[in-house]
Amino acid sequence: MWGIIATWRMAHDGILAAKRLLEEKSTCGDAVETAIKCVEDYPFYKSVGYGGLPNERGIVEMDAAFMDGDTFKIGAVAGIVDIANPIAVARRLSEEKFNSFRVGQGATEFAMLAGFERKNMLTERAKKIWQKRLDEMAKTNLSPYDGHDTVGVVALDKSQSMAAGTSSSGLFMKKQGRVGDSPLSGSGFYVDSKIGGAAATGLGEDLMKGCLSYEIVRLMGEGLSPQAACDQAVYRFSDTLKERYGKAGAFSLIAMNNEGEWGVATNVEFTFSLATEKEQPAIYLANPGPEQNTIIEPITKEWLDAYEKRIKAPV
Amino acid sequence: MWGIIATWRMAHDGILAAKRLLEEKSTCGDAVETAIKCVEDYPFYKSVGYGGLPNERGIVEMDAAFMDGDTFKIGAVAGIVDIANPIAVARRLSEEKFNSFRVGQGATEFAMLAGFERKNMLTERAKKIWQKRLDEMAKTNLSPYDGHDTVGVVALDKSQSMAAGTSSSGLFMKKQGRVGDSPLSGSGFYVDSKIGGAAATGLGEDLMKGCLSYEIVRLMGEGLSPQAACDQAVYRFSDTLKERYGKAGAFSLIAMNNEGEWGVATNVEFTFSLATEKEQPAIYLANPGPEQNTIIEPITKEWLDAYEKRIKAPV
Repeated sequence: MWGIIATWRMAHDGILAAKRLLEEKSTCGDAVETAIKCVEDYPFYKSVGYGGLPNERGIVEMDAAFMDGDTFKIGAVAGIVDIANPIAVARRLSEEKFNSFRVGQGATEFAMLAGFERKNMLTERAKKIWQKRLDEMAKTNLSPYDGHDTVGVVALDKSQSMAAGTSSSGLFMKKQGRVGDSPLSGSGFYVDSKIGGAAATGLGEDLMKGCLSYEIVRLMGEGLSPQAACDQAVYRFSDTLKERYGKAGAFSLIAMNNEGEWGVATNVEFTFSLATEKEQPAIYLANPGPEQNTIIEPITKEWLDAYEKRIKAPV
Repeated sequence: MWGIIATWRMAHDGILAAKRLLEEKSTCGDAVETAIKCVEDYPFYKSVGYGGLPNERGIVEMDAAFMDGDTFKIGAVAGIVDIANPIAVARRLSEEKFNSFRVGQGATEFAMLAGFERKNMLTERAKKIWQKRLDEMAKTNLSPYDGHDTVGVVALDKSQSMAAGTSSSGLFMKKQGRVGDSPLSGSGFYVDSKIGGAAATGLGEDLMKGCLSYEIVRLMGEGLSPQAACDQAVYRFSDTLKERYGKAGAFSLIAMNNEGEWGVATNVEFTFSLATEKEQPAIYLANPGPEQNTIIEPITKEWLDAYEKRIKAPV
């Protein structure tokens, strides 16, 4: 059995590429890296890699992580700049026994010295959106923060190994050096090949309060299905945050176990993409249900057309 | 009931200061910050704050975090430089809804603009130790990495609120921008006032593979005593890492529940300090026992004398 699941509609082309790899007996690590690179490279996805929206100073600072579910090896970067594929840097760092999580200038310099492709990640389009928002902020009291869609991927390969990865340009208009949950083990991602894996997207500041990726993997290890594990972890914690913190930011989690079964839970409208040996690649729409459950339906052509129009609309 | 527990003998003076605060009805947050500041300020502790050993380039880069167990508010910094008390910066950031975890230059600039005390954190002594190690590395094949003793603190105050904090200068001779577990929720620390809190010290690269602070709090939430929770989480994960990753780095965890009961577990010799309403402030020595348990004994005068001599020995 093989399988792969990823956050957001934007991951779908990557899922198609990764599916071909997994069918041909590639490793789950290659599948995760390939899927995420597709998203990082596509200029119209404005929360990941090239074309990602910048911080308040106009700099695209990116976070990424990679985890190997066989060995628990983790590599991560945060606040890296001018590097085409942060996920590839994170994966390389996962091979290091020491210094496997690097931030800021140290992360960028590591990637440069290791020969990873350099690239100005700020597209003209992203720059325009940023300038427009600066103007709006000058005129209104609008909260500057918006957009925090991480691509998170969990994959299972034919040899029953699993891997997980994340990549994000973080919160639009973030302060320099702000880091969300994406590079944080247990919050942004977690995977154990003997159980399964999970990854998150949403408001990182709130996700790190709950360690939801770890919790979902743990619940699957206790025998829960991926869907039951996601529902239990996500809706309980969303309620707990409302009670204790006063408010819960938007967040959505995906999970897959080591039999290729999957689940998602979310407190907002959320899309995801998946393919398994048994299921054709497809994009789904998920919404929180009335009873701590998740309502999942196939995406409609209307939704996809509107999305396509939205991401390419003139700024 | 009030109580406070902290990693390493170095925390003891801070525990004494925090004890006075907790007796006088100060908050657990003030107790945690005060205890950690004492360690950050003392020049002879070479893995935290002033006097901490630098990265490979001779720069003291520091990580710290603060978590409020009532609201789950978290603030954290990583790779911050030239700031006297990273724990105070982390605590301030915990009040921010967005941008509450900052790394590198963005973390340092936030602290500067917010008026936190600036300080060259590299003592002459630390510089000498660094230069000596550079010479040794040039001559031998010695692994450069050594020393990763984080101060981690969990406190309970008379109003039954809890808080946790960590501070570390990280792995001696680390690569620029390397981040360990200390600022990572669930790995370096976690606290829930309705249950208890935990904090970690040891090889961050391995600690973040296990999310042990979260796991210990979770186990206490299931009804385990702090000691049973520490033993179960730490020894199981240490074994799992040996089996799956080939080796487990040194790590030690401390925990306290919301009744002031405490526990520790460690896979190496480990000291810690604590005080509660029922127990006089004291330093203890912990070692892994033969059956997934922890052997805890009062520190001896001989141990303390040898320690004092060691930390102040000529370089």
